[in-house]
Amino acid sequence: MKKVRMGMVGGGQGAFIGAIHRMAASLDGQIELVCGAFSSDPQRSIDSGAALYLPEERCYANYEDMFTAEALLPVNERMEFVAIVTPNHLHFPIAKAAIERGFHVMSDKPATLNLSEVLTLESILAKHDVLYGLTHTYNGYPLVKQAKHLIKQGELGNIVKIVVEYSQGWLASKSDENSKQASWRLDPKKSGVSCCMGDIGVHAANLAEYVSGIQITHLCADLTSSIIGRALDDDGTVIVKFSNGAKGLLFASQIAVGDENNLKLRIYGDKKSMEWSQLEPNTLLLKSNNEPTQLIRTGVGEMCEAAQQATRTPAGHPEGYLEAFANIYLNFVKQIRAHKNGVDCSNQEFDVPSIEDAIRGMAFIENVVQSNQSNEKWQALSLNTQPMEVK
Amino acid sequence: MKKVRMGMVGGGQGAFIGAIHRMAASLDGQIELVCGAFSSDPQRSIDSGAALYLPEERCYANYEDMFTAEALLPVNERMEFVAIVTPNHLHFPIAKAAIERGFHVMSDKPATLNLSEVLTLESILAKHDVLYGLTHTYNGYPLVKQAKHLIKQGELGNIVKIVVEYSQGWLASKSDENSKQASWRLDPKKSGVSCCMGDIGVHAANLAEYVSGIQITHLCADLTSSIIGRALDDDGTVIVKFSNGAKGLLFASQIAVGDENNLKLRIYGDKKSMEWSQLEPNTLLLKSNNEPTQLIRTGVGEMCEAAQQATRTPAGHPEGYLEAFANIYLNFVKQIRAHKNGVDCSNQEFDVPSIEDAIRGMAFIENVVQSNQSNEKWQALSLNTQPMEVK
Amino acid sequence: MKKVRMGMVGGGQGAFIGAIHRMAASLDGQIELVCGAFSSDPQRSIDSGAALYLPEERCYANYEDMFTAEALLPVNERMEFVAIVTPNHLHFPIAKAAIERGFHVMSDKPATLNLSEVLTLESILAKHDVLYGLTHTYNGYPLVKQAKHLIKQGELGNIVKIVVEYSQGWLASKSDENSKQASWRLDPKKSGVSCCMGDIGVHAANLAEYVSGIQITHLCADLTSSIIGRALDDDGTVIVKFSNGAKGLLFASQIAVGDENNLKLRIYGDKKSMEWSQLEPNTLLLKSNNEPTQLIRTGVGEMCEAAQQATRTPAGHPEGYLEAFANIYLNFVKQIRAHKNGVDCSNQEFDVPSIEDAIRGMAFIENVVQSNQSNEKWQALSLNTQPMEVK
Amino acid sequence: MKKVRMGMVGGGQGAFIGAIHRMAASLDGQIELVCGAFSSDPQRSIDSGAALYLPEERCYANYEDMFTAEALLPVNERMEFVAIVTPNHLHFPIAKAAIERGFHVMSDKPATLNLSEVLTLESILAKHDVLYGLTHTYNGYPLVKQAKHLIKQGELGNIVKIVVEYSQGWLASKSDENSKQASWRLDPKKSGVSCCMGDIGVHAANLAEYVSGIQITHLCADLTSSIIGRALDDDGTVIVKFSNGAKGLLFASQIAVGDENNLKLRIYGDKKSMEWSQLEPNTLLLKSNNEPTQLIRTGVGEMCEAAQQATRTPAGHPEGYLEAFANIYLNFVKQIRAHKNGVDCSNQEFDVPSIEDAIRGMAFIENVVQSNQSNEKWQALSLNTQPMEVK
Repeated sequence: MKKVRMGMVGGGQGAFIGAIHRMAASLDGQIELVCGAFSSDPQRSIDSGAALYLPEERCYANYEDMFTAEALLPVNERMEFVAIVTPNHLHFPIAKAAIERGFHVMSDKPATLNLSEVLTLESILAKHDVLYGLTHTYNGYPLVKQAKHLIKQGELGNIVKIVVEYSQGWLASKSDENSKQASWRLDPKKSGVSCCMGDIGVHAANLAEYVSGIQITHLCADLTSSIIGRALDDDGTVIVKFSNGAKGLLFASQIAVGDENNLKLRIYGDKKSMEWSQLEPNTLLLKSNNEPTQLIRTGVGEMCEAAQQATRTPAGHPEGYLEAFANIYLNFVKQIRAHKNGVDCSNQEFDVPSIEDAIRGMAFIENVVQSNQSNEKWQALSLNTQPMEVK
Repeated sequence: MKKVRMGMVGGGQGAFIGAIHRMAASLDGQIELVCGAFSSDPQRSIDSGAALYLPEERCYANYEDMFTAEALLPVNERMEFVAIVTPNHLHFPIAKAAIERGFHVMSDKPATLNLSEVLTLESILAKHDVLYGLTHTYNGYPLVKQAKHLIKQGELGNIVKIVVEYSQGWLASKSDENSKQASWRLDPKKSGVSCCMGDIGVHAANLAEYVSGIQITHLCADLTSSIIGRALDDDGTVIVKFSNGAKGLLFASQIAVGDENNLKLRIYGDKKSMEWSQLEPNTLLLKSNNEPTQLIRTGVGEMCEAAQQATRTPAGHPEGYLEAFANIYLNFVKQIRAHKNGVDCSNQEFDVPSIEDAIRGMAFIENVVQSNQSNEKWQALSLNTQPMEVK
Repeated sequence: MKKVRMGMVGGGQGAFIGAIHRMAASLDGQIELVCGAFSSDPQRSIDSGAALYLPEERCYANYEDMFTAEALLPVNERMEFVAIVTPNHLHFPIAKAAIERGFHVMSDKPATLNLSEVLTLESILAKHDVLYGLTHTYNGYPLVKQAKHLIKQGELGNIVKIVVEYSQGWLASKSDENSKQASWRLDPKKSGVSCCMGDIGVHAANLAEYVSGIQITHLCADLTSSIIGRALDDDGTVIVKFSNGAKGLLFASQIAVGDENNLKLRIYGDKKSMEWSQLEPNTLLLKSNNEPTQLIRTGVGEMCEAAQQATRTPAGHPEGYLEAFANIYLNFVKQIRAHKNGVDCSNQEFDVPSIEDAIRGMAFIENVVQSNQSNEKWQALSLNTQPMEVK
Repeated sequence: MKKVRMGMVGGGQGAFIGAIHRMAASLDGQIELVCGAFSSDPQRSIDSGAALYLPEERCYANYEDMFTAEALLPVNERMEFVAIVTPNHLHFPIAKAAIERGFHVMSDKPATLNLSEVLTLESILAKHDVLYGLTHTYNGYPLVKQAKHLIKQGELGNIVKIVVEYSQGWLASKSDENSKQASWRLDPKKSGVSCCMGDIGVHAANLAEYVSGIQITHLCADLTSSIIGRALDDDGTVIVKFSNGAKGLLFASQIAVGDENNLKLRIYGDKKSMEWSQLEPNTLLLKSNNEPTQLIRTGVGEMCEAAQQATRTPAGHPEGYLEAFANIYLNFVKQIRAHKNGVDCSNQEFDVPSIEDAIRGMAFIENVVQSNQSNEKWQALSLNTQPMEVK
């Protein structure tokens, strides 16, 4: 048996998320990076690849060349899947090209520039026997999986309320806009109709739905663009209703000075509640009214299968963001191997964020932006919204 | 010089908040409880007073009797102020009677049953030379005062966002309604138009305004009554706008299973932010994007005058809720003494929550309930709302 | 029924611990301060008393005058017990005089200047029908009582290890010695043979024994005097053995820069362990190897009787140091009332630190100092040590 | 340029630390595992290698075969360094063989079975041009490096006290001894003269010296073997003196029920102090007496070069144990590359734990055991102790 072979589009020198994807893919020794189109500048792509110890001939000038060339290589040499780590507006064309060439896709989120694209992507996928995953990283934490498990087992009773928040401060001032990371995120052409909700709000929404097992059906949104001249939102609050009648609250910010990556999830049932924070991801609180709060810790005591498989170190040796990220890749590798063996298996079975998650994410973003523009309080979440015009 | 003499209405045996007021008033040895109408049952009032070592003749059958009798006592024997610790619907008539008899008033919150009553109270106060205070307890914490001070000094820059939350779980189930505390709070006739917002949301709103120095001008509210048959809200979210253009978010709950008295305030400026939680009230976080977070602790280093005066023990000897509560009384005692000395001085000067705070609180409650009933997203906060009909 | 009448020796204007005792005694409205010898300067004593609203005639020039004069007052007017809040060297003569006059005593700790004195005090007490209590304040916290209860119930199994620490930083530099608090504590004539161990180490030792129910039998101590010219220790570590064979570790410091009053207790059994910290006294951790840690919180769920009686506010309204201190007084008041009713009852029954605790404390201090001076590793803890010579 | 080629001895299927080393080595894509002698059982070695996607011919039956065979391969194919991840008693013979064959060595700790062996190893190393590193993992955390930097810069002033602790509970009961991890650690023939001090106490000692820059010179130790029939210690306390006159305290336990990998370091200077805990490794507290505590966070603000290079993700995306471990490897790779380029460079320069650390570690372990056996309080730490007899 051999490692699974990965190609990458984007992630050249100086990029941030590409390096993260590579470390996540490397960690478990299951994946080998074999090729890349790391930059739109061909020389930069070669240089980036060289720094990753790739042979020059597999560092391509662009993704079209890469897919074409790799498809010509022998089956057990060529790239098996591509990791897409570019700005948002390129996710769709790259994913489309990869799928049509028969390569599996692991895409950074949000899935596409808008809802329309992701719906098209879904129909393309329906016609090809390839796998598609999305890096909703936070799902990868062991205790997030344990939380999902406990809820499924009914530990909380009926869910009555969810509060999910994701606050960052890195775009708090005008001068913060100059970084490479900031500039494309604030550019509607590259980022889409939302900055804050598209970049992090969508993570929060996905996390809430993933863990709770219930879905957002209605929302009331208020977005803010805090800095003069900024085309997109950098802060927002969304009151939501869930499919089971529960109420919820999602708020996110990129101008919350002093907040790092403060993603926090609180789910209240009619029996118990739970609380998890990305800043201390190895602790999950399970609370009730008349019993001591239980401090569930990664690796302590019996965990569900999914949490166990997502845990690499003994209790008290903290597992972090890269391990969570690696868990997305690890599950995807298992799914690819199963697929290779002719087993027909869904993302859900392998616990890999799917095209359905991708659609819900894009719908969330667009519906939030629409709600923000409306003076009506409530809006039903539609998965078939017309593409919005970016103003 | 003598201690300041306090009477009490409400707070008989078995009551909760009356005992809290008495401990808060006792702590510093500045106040002497001299009389009370502790219960509407005359014998119970006498028994309650006896347990407090009061002579039988100063344990009255009702507040009217108490005010009448006390007014006949020599000036330096009679009660100087009354603490009102009854359910909400009695606050107004008792306060009115006390003021008209010339007694100062320290009222539990919310000030009255509705906005209309508090506006009437304001006009009564305007005609009498008596002092009026309101126990917005959380203002009494030393670090809340330090937070206010730091913001006033410009430490945060311009405030751009406030998140304030107050979650409790004690009303999470139907069976929780049977307690004495719960039954009147869920009865519109005794509690007013809101349970959750009237009981704790108003504390959160007051705290946010007190610390930040800016005021809520618009709101978009969504309230929930989680249990079938419950006449009033037990959970709610309010998106707000502040007088300086900042956005905000206030959420409160009485059905958040496992939450104790989880009052937390986060204020974000364009330079720095701060975070304070009642559950660990002796720590105030001062955060920025590129400097270490500062962990300000009660009693460590130089504090503002107001915080110093609110601090009784050396750093590391935790000060709690009763001390915060006592600080409200301590400031009120100073105000009463100044008043006695003929100094004309405002609540603001003595840092005692005032009739203006009372009005803003009642307006907040009623406006939130109105917004909840509307399908319009935004509503301007009006201080002159028509009294609402309780449904 | 009337309040219990307290006199005070020490605690004049500018003093620290006297004010703490008064607030603790006031909080519950069970005790009335009726007289005091607040200062060795008669005018200062009167002024201090006046600020406490005491009549001039009950502000005495010294404790001898006070005991004499109070003893002449009618039984139901005169002081019933005296709170001794002076520097250590005065504890013994004042307690002796009070006891011999028939007044109950609540003494600040450590009980006396040395072990010899406290043994004498014990024999004096044996001859008089008066009560004696000692303010080992930290015993007063609700969760300390709950911890003791859980251990007694066998929750931890057999205790195998105890780690107790108490770190402060306030004497870290030479210039810190100038304060009133520091100067007498560092003066062997007023403080005794130890500064750090006498002031706070003894609290740690008492807390460990109180909660665990086992006693220190052997110790190996290393003390340090960090600043040149300092006559007494300001830091120390003591390895200990307990009566049941468990090992332990006690360390304390007054030069631990940045530490406030960092008293922390960890008790390990062969089944479970627990952890409590004074800095966050409303949380008690109950830990085991394969179950989630339980976060026991003041007021949440069912507590033992002693913890319940020590709790004043609902869960989530933090109780602090003054409340813990007040619990010592509250139990002493109950003991005094029982005594008045002719019930013969021990400190242990009323959960008030006793003369036996006082003796163990003084023995701990002296044995630690002796062990420090020895090159032998282990020393048995003797309760009959010869009085040490202060060097 | 190519990846650096690693071989491994030990770490076959079912082993724990081998997998950790492999993930740490993989993370950054700088190291390629090319061969291994994973088990003393040849078939198991091959199976283990196959699961790691290694060709059968490079899965060796034992380390001698591996070193012999690899040495015969072309220079740019053969293993460059070996990771030794066996039980302690095999560290020395494997390291010796590797060094004598010219392979660099990365050894798990403790370096050898006893001090004598490590001194021999030092003399062997002196005769060969190979590099030697030791996985004192905790040195790899970004904030540990920042702490070291701040101290070197004088931020704390003169160090006066160090408290370092490392508590685990996994050996708390007799039945815990049956695991593979436990059985060899409790066997003096495989583990050496100490279990607790050899396994984790030595980490604590190394961390304290690494961060503070001062060295242990004297110690007073008390070790315990808590379970009947256990040949080695499972708990211990060591009072220490440091080279600059500072006092210190090191305690470690494997029977501290409910503790995970509770490694915590507190260093007190005469100006400031710092506190770091492995359980939350992305926070470093910098404390002083009169200023707010500074909460230094991984990736926030300006960090020293070493900390920056040890940080992979943006602030608020927690970095954990594997990342710390990977940092040891990453620095070793840099050192190997420099060595390959003919640059003569020390471990210290590349921040890789060295043979000197190895010697100090073994000396610490043996001296602690000797001190424990002595009734003298203090013992000077000797780096030339006679090998101890295991009883």
